[in-house]
Amino acid sequence: MEFITVHEAEEIILAETRSYGIEQLPIGRASGRVLAGTLRADRDLPPFDRATVDGIAIGAEAVARNIKQFTIKGVQAAGMEPIPLSGPDKCIEIMTGAAVHHSAVAIVRYEDVELDRPNAQLTGSSPLIGQHIHRMGQDKRVNDVVVPAGRIVGPSLMSIAASLGSSYIPVKKLPRVAVITTGSELVHIDDTPSPFQIRRSNDIAIQAALSRYGIYASAIHLSDDYKKMEACLTSCVQDYDVLLLTGGVSMGRFDYVPDVLSTLGVIKKFHKVKQRPGKPLWFGAFQHGPIVFAFPGNPVSVFMCLHRYFIPWLEESLGLNRPAEYAILQNDICFAPPLQYFPQVSVRISRHGLLEALPVRGNGSGDFANLAETNAFMELPLEHSVFRRGNAYRIWKYITH
Amino acid sequence: MEFITVHEAEEIILAETRSYGIEQLPIGRASGRVLAGTLRADRDLPPFDRATVDGIAIGAEAVARNIKQFTIKGVQAAGMEPIPLSGPDKCIEIMTGAAVHHSAVAIVRYEDVELDRPNAQLTGSSPLIGQHIHRMGQDKRVNDVVVPAGRIVGPSLMSIAASLGSSYIPVKKLPRVAVITTGSELVHIDDTPSPFQIRRSNDIAIQAALSRYGIYASAIHLSDDYKKMEACLTSCVQDYDVLLLTGGVSMGRFDYVPDVLSTLGVIKKFHKVKQRPGKPLWFGAFQHGPIVFAFPGNPVSVFMCLHRYFIPWLEESLGLNRPAEYAILQNDICFAPPLQYFPQVSVRISRHGLLEALPVRGNGSGDFANLAETNAFMELPLEHSVFRRGNAYRIWKYITH
Repeated sequence: MEFITVHEAEEIILAETRSYGIEQLPIGRASGRVLAGTLRADRDLPPFDRATVDGIAIGAEAVARNIKQFTIKGVQAAGMEPIPLSGPDKCIEIMTGAAVHHSAVAIVRYEDVELDRPNAQLTGSSPLIGQHIHRMGQDKRVNDVVVPAGRIVGPSLMSIAASLGSSYIPVKKLPRVAVITTGSELVHIDDTPSPFQIRRSNDIAIQAALSRYGIYASAIHLSDDYKKMEACLTSCVQDYDVLLLTGGVSMGRFDYVPDVLSTLGVIKKFHKVKQRPGKPLWFGAFQHGPIVFAFPGNPVSVFMCLHRYFIPWLEESLGLNRPAEYAILQNDICFAPPLQYFPQVSVRISRHGLLEALPVRGNGSGDFANLAETNAFMELPLEHSVFRRGNAYRIWKYITH
Repeated sequence: MEFITVHEAEEIILAETRSYGIEQLPIGRASGRVLAGTLRADRDLPPFDRATVDGIAIGAEAVARNIKQFTIKGVQAAGMEPIPLSGPDKCIEIMTGAAVHHSAVAIVRYEDVELDRPNAQLTGSSPLIGQHIHRMGQDKRVNDVVVPAGRIVGPSLMSIAASLGSSYIPVKKLPRVAVITTGSELVHIDDTPSPFQIRRSNDIAIQAALSRYGIYASAIHLSDDYKKMEACLTSCVQDYDVLLLTGGVSMGRFDYVPDVLSTLGVIKKFHKVKQRPGKPLWFGAFQHGPIVFAFPGNPVSVFMCLHRYFIPWLEESLGLNRPAEYAILQNDICFAPPLQYFPQVSVRISRHGLLEALPVRGNGSGDFANLAETNAFMELPLEHSVFRRGNAYRIWKYITH
């Protein structure tokens, strides 16, 4: 047997990352994409001395002499050109977000002022120089990096880009992906299966997971017919950057996938991994060309291989650097086979800030109903067969929505 | 002053949840929505005794008498009608996922069989009754609940629904939401701001966050003009279920929002909360009608109020029950003001399965650049002013993408 370990499989896969280039997108269409360049400040942030409260602006001499009584000489709304002070006992009513004129050195909040317009009297403690003024350039100077490359685009990044006037941002281009389900026993969701058939679901799971990254994968179904499979995959390796197949990679007599892929010139990198679920995983690639993941057909195996192998390959290819995650096992687990075991777990956060993983026992890799009760796979080390409650192990959270 | 606590504000808001009904959606369009009914098994799961490996199927007498030598009487692919065994020394080659005939009681893997077709000889240990057969109904019986209502629709749920033939699923309808930015100092992202103006970004942040739930919110901008604001909001309260305003709720002379909303008959539930950021938060509602959140204008305040108040209101209204999350503070924090403090933190998971929150100091609520370096707000208790490293406090993770 030519079984390899999970670690070896991972290394082989991550040696085959690809780069698909960069494109410019309007920020409203970039959610979920990976930023491919830095976002820099187009001017100082804040771009002017900014009032952080509503109140009155006063000058340096007023602060030094502790003047309490002022005459209001103007009202300055946010967005207006700053109004200068015309004397130590003069003040300007100023609104949050307004630009503070350089003749003013402090803002006194309305809460600390008694107003009898045009008179204003300070009622609180003595003002301090600079109070309630957010200084120009205090957060960033013009041209400073505000967001580095390699971040996922989401609400905060989009809002920052908008503030900087970056209505288009550079993002990593995405591979063209085909999801190819195989198996004569699988019928379309809207068809009525015979008593011995089941409906297809792996295509839907994979498409939904990839949409999180902005990838809209094609879905193709093939029955277990060598010639048809060969014809279809011949065109797929020309049209797509990534093929994700499900089924047809085990020892069955109609498991044509590895043979067909070899015929097409896909270089097999490995077949079969010391793991449960997902043992028959097949991986291959053209040199500098399309890459092919052929997952076993069981929904749980597909889900595991997708999260453990394909998503890390995708994120690495896009330049995303997501840190590993660990959780604390809540039950003892015994697992004797010489395979790396990936139990399905339900991860939750305790009141004490611990990530707790409760294994939820399914009936093997065919029990897809169990996916609804769990939210991660836990990766238990190959070297051991007993895993104790209280130990932390790596987890692979399911992509949600 | 009429300041209320964060806890009081939360209670008032959650007393105003709404229900918007249920709609049926094709599963491919339901990602991010909340399942509004149970998904039940349309037949037993598995729907037949299912082979879990590729190999040969043998009968009860063969197992009892420990027969090792068989003649192959047929090949059964997945999806085919089951082939009966015709005697104790007869077997069927059977493929993973195929239906096992009731005359067969065990499957022996190809790995444990020496094949010289039509002969097959067992080479491994004696087979056990039931081995490698996933029994009909072992996971679920027909009509059992497979997924309960109230779950977010994502890849695993969509795949389960597909398996059950639920091409349409019931989901909670969404409120019609308008995001209304206010402030004469704010220009459109594509316009060039004067030296005293800034670009709008709150609308983009809120729209992006809500899209995670499948909500496509309208965005409307209003300058600080009482009449225009009144006219626009008059039509908004008729056209939308939820208004999310930003800006214009502080003590400024052009902060017309609370007045205009009162004029329109929106019942003010509270204004100002003992918190930083986000103190001037305003909340109101029509009885059984639209609800209105008016956030302060600073991007960080908006982000905090959105995650701490609006999202919980939305999730509760949709019947989502998301557990609270906690993380362990990594630095001591001193915060003297009598306000509940929500520092921005960067949360990561340690190798030991601990959720660690590192505070990242910004320059106040105007420093939106800080949102790129953090991924959550931490909620520090109002009663204290010193918060020690090592203590766990509640966190509110940002909506990502």
